[in-house]
Amino acid sequence: MKTAIEEILKNIELATDYIEESTISNFLDVITKSNNIFVIGAGRSGLVAKAFAMRLMHLGIGTYVVGETISPAISEDDSILAISGSGETNTIVSAVRIAKDRGSKVLVLTSYPESTLGSLADSILLVKGRTKVDIDNEDYIKRQIDGNYTSLTPLGTAFELTSLIFLDGLISELMHKMGKTENDLKNRHTVLE
Amino acid sequence: MKTAIEEILKNIELATDYIEESTISNFLDVITKSNNIFVIGAGRSGLVAKAFAMRLMHLGIGTYVVGETISPAISEDDSILAISGSGETNTIVSAVRIAKDRGSKVLVLTSYPESTLGSLADSILLVKGRTKVDIDNEDYIKRQIDGNYTSLTPLGTAFELTSLIFLDGLISELMHKMGKTENDLKNRHTVLE
Amino acid sequence: MKTAIEEILKNIELATDYIEESTISNFLDVITKSNNIFVIGAGRSGLVAKAFAMRLMHLGIGTYVVGETISPAISEDDSILAISGSGETNTIVSAVRIAKDRGSKVLVLTSYPESTLGSLADSILLVKGRTKVDIDNEDYIKRQIDGNYTSLTPLGTAFELTSLIFLDGLISELMHKMGKTENDLKNRHTVLE
Amino acid sequence: MKTAIEEILKNIELATDYIEESTISNFLDVITKSNNIFVIGAGRSGLVAKAFAMRLMHLGIGTYVVGETISPAISEDDSILAISGSGETNTIVSAVRIAKDRGSKVLVLTSYPESTLGSLADSILLVKGRTKVDIDNEDYIKRQIDGNYTSLTPLGTAFELTSLIFLDGLISELMHKMGKTENDLKNRHTVLE
Repeated sequence: MKTAIEEILKNIELATDYIEESTISNFLDVITKSNNIFVIGAGRSGLVAKAFAMRLMHLGIGTYVVGETISPAISEDDSILAISGSGETNTIVSAVRIAKDRGSKVLVLTSYPESTLGSLADSILLVKGRTKVDIDNEDYIKRQIDGNYTSLTPLGTAFELTSLIFLDGLISELMHKMGKTENDLKNRHTVLE
Repeated sequence: MKTAIEEILKNIELATDYIEESTISNFLDVITKSNNIFVIGAGRSGLVAKAFAMRLMHLGIGTYVVGETISPAISEDDSILAISGSGETNTIVSAVRIAKDRGSKVLVLTSYPESTLGSLADSILLVKGRTKVDIDNEDYIKRQIDGNYTSLTPLGTAFELTSLIFLDGLISELMHKMGKTENDLKNRHTVLE
Repeated sequence: MKTAIEEILKNIELATDYIEESTISNFLDVITKSNNIFVIGAGRSGLVAKAFAMRLMHLGIGTYVVGETISPAISEDDSILAISGSGETNTIVSAVRIAKDRGSKVLVLTSYPESTLGSLADSILLVKGRTKVDIDNEDYIKRQIDGNYTSLTPLGTAFELTSLIFLDGLISELMHKMGKTENDLKNRHTVLE
Repeated sequence: MKTAIEEILKNIELATDYIEESTISNFLDVITKSNNIFVIGAGRSGLVAKAFAMRLMHLGIGTYVVGETISPAISEDDSILAISGSGETNTIVSAVRIAKDRGSKVLVLTSYPESTLGSLADSILLVKGRTKVDIDNEDYIKRQIDGNYTSLTPLGTAFELTSLIFLDGLISELMHKMGKTENDLKNRHTVLE
């Protein structure tokens, strides 16, 4: 288990090298200027989207999860943040297209900037998933040859975990930029559970 | 199947006789004066709560579903609407107690006004479930003796359906009171699905 | 409020006349013969789908809600039940197409049998929504002229409530067909809330 | 942002040192021998629980998320896995107590093994959250004095991320133990999105 965890952490560290300051700056800009941030993702990427939305709410930023009960019509003053490793998930591409047509800004986390979702984005946060990272990392390829590679981060695991940690990094930046303390977040945290 | 449906409709009709004008008036008052309405329910009653919250959102009334991603801390300017047939569901009683302690108003839909939840309520909308209705309706008792009674509205079915329809009636009242048209609701309906 | 409730009940009663015995029989057949029933719906129709799935689970019938955490790949031994008033909701049409391509049976509740969803269905349960019912009901048309009509059952309200009650009628039929008692359902009802 | 990410990764690395082989072994044992694994968590810990459940489903292990539509009654052949940093979350303690009373095995992820939840557990996976880790890490304390510490991993962030990565490590162990390949998981992955 520790081997798997080390592998996951190495993945995320490697992916961090690809973060560009200008992208972070764009993301922060769109998030703080939008009326509401709508988040969307499928499967475990959808859970990552929710984890991010919860912290945005704690920060006092208007946010909605696509598909939850009280999400209203999106408008041109809102933005949508979509999370998809492949950048081709049907339901997400379809929703993002509608949002873009209504004038909303589009933020995308994906491993494939050249995907359909990438082509719709105003700003793309590149999250190197397993495939791409391999190329930069010889140890990975060796392990893949040994045949036990994919069981360390099966399916979208590397993409999902890296996305979540990147977005938590973004929350930290937002706290700093907005002058918010942990106590401000705590005051907005649900008390009914 | 038609027999079951007739039975369900008869149930709801009978329950309607117990609606008091003063309760409706209290509910409308609390809902329109609250900053946000938090809704809570367990199982199918939780789905009824969500169906109501979605329409409140369509009306432009601030609303949150307890347990969904972006629900913030409840405050004294908010109210909580709880749906529980028995009025004793643990998680709901616990959440309502916390909300009340923080100064929120409490609205309750239940078959048992004398329940714990009932005792915490500022206003109770009585939703006659199966048990109580039986007493007023001889046909029911006869059918119960025949043994095929409970299969028409098993478990909380009668309570849940009646609650949902009562709450949709309340939406109609709110539209009237707020001067909202169906088009106003449509404009706030999600477009991302 | 009582007027709105009466209107809703009248709607459902009228819609009941359109239920065909052969459709019920087809639905029961597909449901009892499938390995698992996947349910899908958007917005309040999605809540109706969940309410139905919960009772299928109580009956011991394998069921999944599309979009919930533990829903696996659908197979040819499964069926999908889709709820959509218009029969044209994008995400639902897309999912049903995939299910059909994999060999799953398709059950549809809609007001428009001639819709895209209708065209994909193995069996259609016609749920007369507001528009269609009007034609059969003069009082409705009069009220519509008075301008206060749509506030009694705004948007998909009539369709959603009628669908829910039809499906609860179906549960009653399933209990009868499978020889299940209310106690059997109770034994499978969650105890963790 | 990179500083925040480094901080998060360091946190997880440190926490990894506290993993005991015997705990992993107990967890694997309970998970593979249970009829179904019920998972529960509140807020972002609840999302972590869902992310884990989704992979268990991909592995073909019976699993349910407490609170989702189709979760049935828990039995003595099932186990419950609860995630709570404090080990004192009301709704979780209450559900776990009920599960334990019915004879289910209890697995817990928490930062406080001496908590109420810890006292109910058959096996505890210690997830060192921020507070505890501080003691082992001087740099942390310095930064805390500087006042910008808590904005790097506000509220339960460190606990939640570490829990998620530990559980993904466990999935890797389960794949190995069960002889499952990534392709086996892919075959059970939902196709309807």
